[in-house]
Amino acid sequence: MTQTDPFDFVIVGATGDLTMRKLLPAFYQRFRLGQAPEGTQIIGVARSKLSSEEYRERGAKALKEFVPSDSYDAAQAEAFLELVQYASLDAADKEADWSTLKSLLDGHEDRPRVFYIATAPNLYVSTAAAFADKELISPHTRIVLEKPIGVDLASAEEINTGVGKYFSEEQIFRIDHYLGKTTVQNVLALRFANPMLERSWNSGTILSVQITAAETVGVGARGPYYDTSGALRDMVQNHLLQVLSLVAMEPPASLTAADLRDEKLKVLRALKPMSPEAVANDTVRAQYVAGKIDGKAVDGYLTDLGDDKSTTETFLAIRTEVRTPRWFGVPFYLRTGKRLAEKATEIVITFRPQPWPIFQDAPQPGRLVLRVQPHEGVSLTLSSKDPSKDEFRLREATLDVSYPEQFHTRYPDSYEELLMDAVQGDPVLFIRRDEVQASWRWVEPILAGWKEDARALETYKAGTWGPDSSKDLLARDGSKWLEDF
Amino acid sequence: MTQTDPFDFVIVGATGDLTMRKLLPAFYQRFRLGQAPEGTQIIGVARSKLSSEEYRERGAKALKEFVPSDSYDAAQAEAFLELVQYASLDAADKEADWSTLKSLLDGHEDRPRVFYIATAPNLYVSTAAAFADKELISPHTRIVLEKPIGVDLASAEEINTGVGKYFSEEQIFRIDHYLGKTTVQNVLALRFANPMLERSWNSGTILSVQITAAETVGVGARGPYYDTSGALRDMVQNHLLQVLSLVAMEPPASLTAADLRDEKLKVLRALKPMSPEAVANDTVRAQYVAGKIDGKAVDGYLTDLGDDKSTTETFLAIRTEVRTPRWFGVPFYLRTGKRLAEKATEIVITFRPQPWPIFQDAPQPGRLVLRVQPHEGVSLTLSSKDPSKDEFRLREATLDVSYPEQFHTRYPDSYEELLMDAVQGDPVLFIRRDEVQASWRWVEPILAGWKEDARALETYKAGTWGPDSSKDLLARDGSKWLEDF
Repeated sequence: MTQTDPFDFVIVGATGDLTMRKLLPAFYQRFRLGQAPEGTQIIGVARSKLSSEEYRERGAKALKEFVPSDSYDAAQAEAFLELVQYASLDAADKEADWSTLKSLLDGHEDRPRVFYIATAPNLYVSTAAAFADKELISPHTRIVLEKPIGVDLASAEEINTGVGKYFSEEQIFRIDHYLGKTTVQNVLALRFANPMLERSWNSGTILSVQITAAETVGVGARGPYYDTSGALRDMVQNHLLQVLSLVAMEPPASLTAADLRDEKLKVLRALKPMSPEAVANDTVRAQYVAGKIDGKAVDGYLTDLGDDKSTTETFLAIRTEVRTPRWFGVPFYLRTGKRLAEKATEIVITFRPQPWPIFQDAPQPGRLVLRVQPHEGVSLTLSSKDPSKDEFRLREATLDVSYPEQFHTRYPDSYEELLMDAVQGDPVLFIRRDEVQASWRWVEPILAGWKEDARALETYKAGTWGPDSSKDLLARDGSKWLEDF
Repeated sequence: MTQTDPFDFVIVGATGDLTMRKLLPAFYQRFRLGQAPEGTQIIGVARSKLSSEEYRERGAKALKEFVPSDSYDAAQAEAFLELVQYASLDAADKEADWSTLKSLLDGHEDRPRVFYIATAPNLYVSTAAAFADKELISPHTRIVLEKPIGVDLASAEEINTGVGKYFSEEQIFRIDHYLGKTTVQNVLALRFANPMLERSWNSGTILSVQITAAETVGVGARGPYYDTSGALRDMVQNHLLQVLSLVAMEPPASLTAADLRDEKLKVLRALKPMSPEAVANDTVRAQYVAGKIDGKAVDGYLTDLGDDKSTTETFLAIRTEVRTPRWFGVPFYLRTGKRLAEKATEIVITFRPQPWPIFQDAPQPGRLVLRVQPHEGVSLTLSSKDPSKDEFRLREATLDVSYPEQFHTRYPDSYEELLMDAVQGDPVLFIRRDEVQASWRWVEPILAGWKEDARALETYKAGTWGPDSSKDLLARDGSKWLEDF
């Protein structure tokens, strides 16, 4: 791990779920690895009236609960918490009392300073303005913006322009934690470090691409936020399009932020536009109703939400295309949902079946499956000779690797690397403004189309893989989702 | 399994090792599978004066010893042995008493009849002549010839021409039991049923090909034969060149005997000729001396043989090339030997490392390993992202499949299918005369070169991977044998 100098990391919204579940545990891990040296400050900022001591107590509880037991150590947690400070403050309010925060940062102008904004997006601009007003922005300062950045192109642009008044684009780190997943980054390694794969990575060899991000959880306490968002804004506009762009991009000239993001952007701009017909034909949206997860009865979305009027989609499947020479005619299927049959994020590359008829059996399409989580790994399904028959018959065999088993290493949480990248000022895994724009440009016609679209929102039973029309979307092309193979 | 009609299978040399270890156990397996229906005769022929009853007793012992315990069943073995007859006869001698054999075959002219010649090659022609003289050759008769077919091109041609006087080329089944191995046939399935592999199967993506057939056993009782042959004639001229031709061949128009063998032949004819310089530079031959196998001391070859003058090679490594557009410049390394460190037959395809420098680490060459035996399976080594580092570092990960584990099926011995193919008259897995010619044409200059070559035969300790110069042969190209990766 790269060593770091002491830094100041200010989390705005520090009493929230994200901070407790992800950010503090991530810093704890990096503290253990020597990446948060003495003098570093993790400064929680929120409106709650708490002392630093009280905040550390909350942090201690969070670490105990959310750090995996094989890396939790009470003494180390205590040592780590000595880096943690708290400032009670409404950071969106210039008129508030900023003295505690200012004194913590005083004299630290030459150190890396990160403001991590984990509050509601409508506070992003006023918070950035307040930092400027209080003269807390140095050339070594970065601001990290959590999703959602807006609810459509206009609101995203408003945030980007508003924050852009106080921070340069180079200082704005739009986080997408999917890019922090080592198995998402592995798409680049597999594609570009293995010529056998690179040479097959095009419409000549690939029949289709599936990207699934399936959850078994429901909306839980996030209901009120989620209901204003839905699967399209919450998962597709950001995470799934980012994964898609890594799968589909042309080889970058380098792995630097500029080259990599230029190539991702080209993919986002090459997505087949969602015309009203495409929205009607190529999207499937649905909401979960009561069902069973792991044999246990669970409620439907409307019950979870406590509002029987909501038409928010908790499941979404989309068929799209990337209109480049490399991919012309290859369908890309995106799918995400809550309360699905399994928790699984995976990328499925289906190869064209061999077209010439020398075998008695029609060769099946081969498959490369990149398992992002859980069970990080890769499998490759190939047609082989069936050993149980003398005649030359084919049978599918699957080569597999489980990364945790093979590498005997901890798989870091996706936030860990991203937080340290922000500290070190490396934007390569963060989203550039033009990428946000391109994503929203593609997504907006879907939002618009759904408003016009007479089809009712479908439903699906919790614990299933969504409505049948999700299968139909692929069946039209003669394809199947992975779990139906 | 294809069902068969009753047939007559005559094994000449029926008291020998091959019959007991391989042929009878193979027929026993196929009897269990219903492929040797009532009325079938397995007729042992040899000079020993034995009754059928006495021969069956030997057969019963052989089945008990050589059939794997999980498929051995005493009652089934007994039922199978009822098909077995014996005729005491010197089948190379027209003047012998052929009455027993003739009466067993009498009236069976319309049934498939196979003569399997498991005697010394110098008896092949006179044996074939005797069958003709006794009018035992019908249109439904095939003759199976075991290796070695000759010791050089001239003697091979003599056998082929001599046997060809009595049997048409379509009736002559030259057996190479490597082609009966389902994992050798799997080369065709993997290459031609999986476009991703087919598209990479050329000098643009492949850096080198290794084919290893390593044994831990010494020469044992085969010493006197082996000493006249050596690794080149015993393993390379037939088995390894056949495997090489499947790896290197162009896609055949079909999997029929004519198309498949035409393509194999083209490879054999495209092998880089072994000039005297090539023999000196690109072959390594050696003989084992005392060492350890599995921790147990074993003797050297000269002691095993009881002759301290022998210069027969028990180890051989060769670097060659296939001079076709597909393979130009790609080295093919062949290696075989007795008393090596492990029993392993495998094909290693090493891919070119990715040539453009976007990664900090030089990407390693990927590898596809086809394990022919034991542990039948395939593994594919790819460069992946190292999850233990934030920076984009590469690390090799190996996807693997074990066929017996995945298919939950018995892996048949290679003789089983070949015997049934001979019964059914399917020559696809047998060697055509022109293939034998092409193999010997390539091998002869090596034999000649070694006579001229001043370098002494090298030695290697039993239980090692052969002499160091075998490593040097690859090191010149910047390559390594698989076990050195």
